[in-house]
Amino acid sequence: MQEKFARESYTEMNELVLPNDTNTFGNLMGGRLLYWMDICSAMAAQKHCNNQVVTVSVDNVSFKRSIKLGEVVTIQAQVTRAFNTSVEVRMEIFAQNLPQGTKVKSNEAYYTFVSIDEEGKPKPIPALVAETDTEKILFEEAQQRRELRLLLAGKLKPENATKIKNLVKLFAPKDPA
Amino acid sequence: MQEKFARESYTEMNELVLPNDTNTFGNLMGGRLLYWMDICSAMAAQKHCNNQVVTVSVDNVSFKRSIKLGEVVTIQAQVTRAFNTSVEVRMEIFAQNLPQGTKVKSNEAYYTFVSIDEEGKPKPIPALVAETDTEKILFEEAQQRRELRLLLAGKLKPENATKIKNLVKLFAPKDPA
Amino acid sequence: MQEKFARESYTEMNELVLPNDTNTFGNLMGGRLLYWMDICSAMAAQKHCNNQVVTVSVDNVSFKRSIKLGEVVTIQAQVTRAFNTSVEVRMEIFAQNLPQGTKVKSNEAYYTFVSIDEEGKPKPIPALVAETDTEKILFEEAQQRRELRLLLAGKLKPENATKIKNLVKLFAPKDPA
Amino acid sequence: MQEKFARESYTEMNELVLPNDTNTFGNLMGGRLLYWMDICSAMAAQKHCNNQVVTVSVDNVSFKRSIKLGEVVTIQAQVTRAFNTSVEVRMEIFAQNLPQGTKVKSNEAYYTFVSIDEEGKPKPIPALVAETDTEKILFEEAQQRRELRLLLAGKLKPENATKIKNLVKLFAPKDPA
Amino acid sequence: MQEKFARESYTEMNELVLPNDTNTFGNLMGGRLLYWMDICSAMAAQKHCNNQVVTVSVDNVSFKRSIKLGEVVTIQAQVTRAFNTSVEVRMEIFAQNLPQGTKVKSNEAYYTFVSIDEEGKPKPIPALVAETDTEKILFEEAQQRRELRLLLAGKLKPENATKIKNLVKLFAPKDPA
Amino acid sequence: MQEKFARESYTEMNELVLPNDTNTFGNLMGGRLLYWMDICSAMAAQKHCNNQVVTVSVDNVSFKRSIKLGEVVTIQAQVTRAFNTSVEVRMEIFAQNLPQGTKVKSNEAYYTFVSIDEEGKPKPIPALVAETDTEKILFEEAQQRRELRLLLAGKLKPENATKIKNLVKLFAPKDPA
Repeated sequence: MQEKFARESYTEMNELVLPNDTNTFGNLMGGRLLYWMDICSAMAAQKHCNNQVVTVSVDNVSFKRSIKLGEVVTIQAQVTRAFNTSVEVRMEIFAQNLPQGTKVKSNEAYYTFVSIDEEGKPKPIPALVAETDTEKILFEEAQQRRELRLLLAGKLKPENATKIKNLVKLFAPKDPA
Repeated sequence: MQEKFARESYTEMNELVLPNDTNTFGNLMGGRLLYWMDICSAMAAQKHCNNQVVTVSVDNVSFKRSIKLGEVVTIQAQVTRAFNTSVEVRMEIFAQNLPQGTKVKSNEAYYTFVSIDEEGKPKPIPALVAETDTEKILFEEAQQRRELRLLLAGKLKPENATKIKNLVKLFAPKDPA
Repeated sequence: MQEKFARESYTEMNELVLPNDTNTFGNLMGGRLLYWMDICSAMAAQKHCNNQVVTVSVDNVSFKRSIKLGEVVTIQAQVTRAFNTSVEVRMEIFAQNLPQGTKVKSNEAYYTFVSIDEEGKPKPIPALVAETDTEKILFEEAQQRRELRLLLAGKLKPENATKIKNLVKLFAPKDPA
Repeated sequence: MQEKFARESYTEMNELVLPNDTNTFGNLMGGRLLYWMDICSAMAAQKHCNNQVVTVSVDNVSFKRSIKLGEVVTIQAQVTRAFNTSVEVRMEIFAQNLPQGTKVKSNEAYYTFVSIDEEGKPKPIPALVAETDTEKILFEEAQQRRELRLLLAGKLKPENATKIKNLVKLFAPKDPA
Repeated sequence: MQEKFARESYTEMNELVLPNDTNTFGNLMGGRLLYWMDICSAMAAQKHCNNQVVTVSVDNVSFKRSIKLGEVVTIQAQVTRAFNTSVEVRMEIFAQNLPQGTKVKSNEAYYTFVSIDEEGKPKPIPALVAETDTEKILFEEAQQRRELRLLLAGKLKPENATKIKNLVKLFAPKDPA
Repeated sequence: MQEKFARESYTEMNELVLPNDTNTFGNLMGGRLLYWMDICSAMAAQKHCNNQVVTVSVDNVSFKRSIKLGEVVTIQAQVTRAFNTSVEVRMEIFAQNLPQGTKVKSNEAYYTFVSIDEEGKPKPIPALVAETDTEKILFEEAQQRRELRLLLAGKLKPENATKIKNLVKLFAPKDPA
């Protein structure tokens, strides 16, 4: 199976915040943003896999800034790494006030998807080739995020999480019992 | 400010999976579920805070089972702990096939919300009282999840994460450098 | 076919009133509430029938109180009685203003559903067992409501409406011609 | 206040049944039809009242025929009678299969609305003038339907329901106690 | 194949402008109107063709008047002419403020549709018979609009556009080179 | 007022075709595409104007290819020219089948918008600077399209349409009367 470049999966989505997307303060509801992020990252995943995909997990997402009615939400998604049958997609989210000409970063997030065949079974996908420095760093870190994800989902025992140990060292107790 | 019981915030939402909620396989899209979870947990948060709330973060969510067109998604949400101006809400999600009479657990998740006043500034809220054993455990663990959340969002330095160290110990390197 | 208890069909739905659900006064439109009530009562009917169901009729519904944008509509549905292939579902509807902590009853309603098989033909369903006093009263009265429904739909001749005669007596002319 | 003719309020609505309006059998959900009926009859009520209106009640509605995905729902609404501050609207609903050129009647229904001013208080409206024979019959019967509606809503005592007694006579017990 | 009258395809659609249909000024978005116009004219086309239809083109549409939240959009559509396998539909669009009793014309437009069979191939349709003077004029002009449409879509060479030459003459240079 | 480059207004929108966007053949409805095109081009117009905008007109749009359920619609919009208070936006629309890795051009279109102030009155906007060869050609032709648009909307008399005469000459009658 032929390898694919990270940039080949790049997908940008721009959505206008309409009344039904907002709460009583006229701010975009977090859930609506999570919904758009799922669709945008699924498109990026499909581009890499050339296959139908299903959402497997969403990493921690924090909402730092309220986005207002009439603003535009820009979501930029790109696959960071492909595993056997799954991909990790990273997104950067921006809020644009077009009349004022402002564009501020709202947040970042990682969603993962599994590639599936017609019977709904996992299907192997091409490996991903990182080209730029940023892509290479994201590719490396993807393994750590994957272990944290599996740990948090209870699918990986702590002692088998080899990669995350580096991260753990950073805040490990100085004098472990 | 008067304390409130965890159970007072309990909220259940039942949603029928309609065609526009599904992908080309007739399965519920992950993003739609995240949207419903946001609304359901926001209701639970509002019940505890007696105030408007805004989504602050979503913890890792993993999707273990596909939910089909025509099935019913049941979301059960309850506040686990209140901090100064924010709450953590835990949800259990089930998929019900009513004609077949089946109900299986789909996943769990934690969303956090901040209580805000009319100017959109954080507003103090009542403390939460855990009554049952499960509520007490969730209350205790909430502090750890909060530290992990802040760490992952880059808002807390590892050396200041006092509570998470217990968790870390579990998978800390046996022979730290 | 095994009997089922009334309480087994209990279903609760909580919906947040969003902008597109409201008229120009910011009040929930009656039609949107009727739509949610249909979905909620259909879920309750499906739980009892363990089968697909189709809406057959809606009894008189009166709207006594306006529900505002941002409030939560709570619908509680339970089957009152099962006939050969159909069920009557009773609903109580409440409007909650969560920031203010208020919950007021909005209205009540009865929807009926028929259980259907794969070809769309009526399919027999289990009998319902009423346990509490309230359930027993609702069970008894269901027969009268059914006759009124059939009368109003022109499917039952007045002289064959045996149960409703008791109700009729209450406001029958004192000196009939 | 000037009187208005019944025909001045005539409103027709045609809606295409889309996937999200249907259940898993591809049939229009009853609740979606009730929603469209509310909007169509509210338009007719607004035409007569020249005022904002709010749904007050829905009379018994029975669904006799399933309407399929891709068919067109035609709703024809007209005010039958105006009371002090409220109107009764009658609707006939048809299902059209345009490719096959068929149009069959699905059902009839009555919705009532109250006319309200800017503060949400009931506001007097013009009287309605019935012209055709059908309009005159519907005008007369409107008083009986109103009494039945008030009786069923518990707002009218049986002994004060003067008009409905004629209807009652039809199926009153032969030998009243 | 039997001819059909123009009036047999007449279709009227009335839509209430809801919050999610509007921009931040509370005015109906042009795109939402174009969407409703597509559905309304497709219904008219289906009535003439007694067949499934697909949108082929939209002629120039200009929006002359803003339509407000809470107003009613009335679309009146009728087929003007049938070609071998396609029809042209003309629409007049009105904005009604029902509380104020006003109805003003918003714009006009022409959409064209092709009739297709089960495999998605063009399928012959009945000829259209224009009866009134207006219908006859619209029928005649339809040929010119068709040529302009094909010219603008690059499907017709100028020298083969026989009918449009009359229109062209009107604004042809007085002294052509 | 400072001039702005054409490329500064570039906006890309990617939308997944969901069930409710399709007709009974599972093809995207033309009206839904026109709706998305309106939002995408309005974003491009807002970027150039740094102001709220309102749709003024839609030029002829022809639909050449059906787009299927589950495919992705890509809309690329850029302002071609700014007039005193209005802009013309050109769009290219593509249909992507991501699992198959195909991307085909569906159609092109021009929408125009007027820039408005808080009272809804037209507001002057920056001039547009075309840089590339394609941008320069589109800039030049924009004047002709504008005249055709005004002619078709009846706002410009043929004798005052100076620019379009060149286009007209191409297919003007050889021996004008």
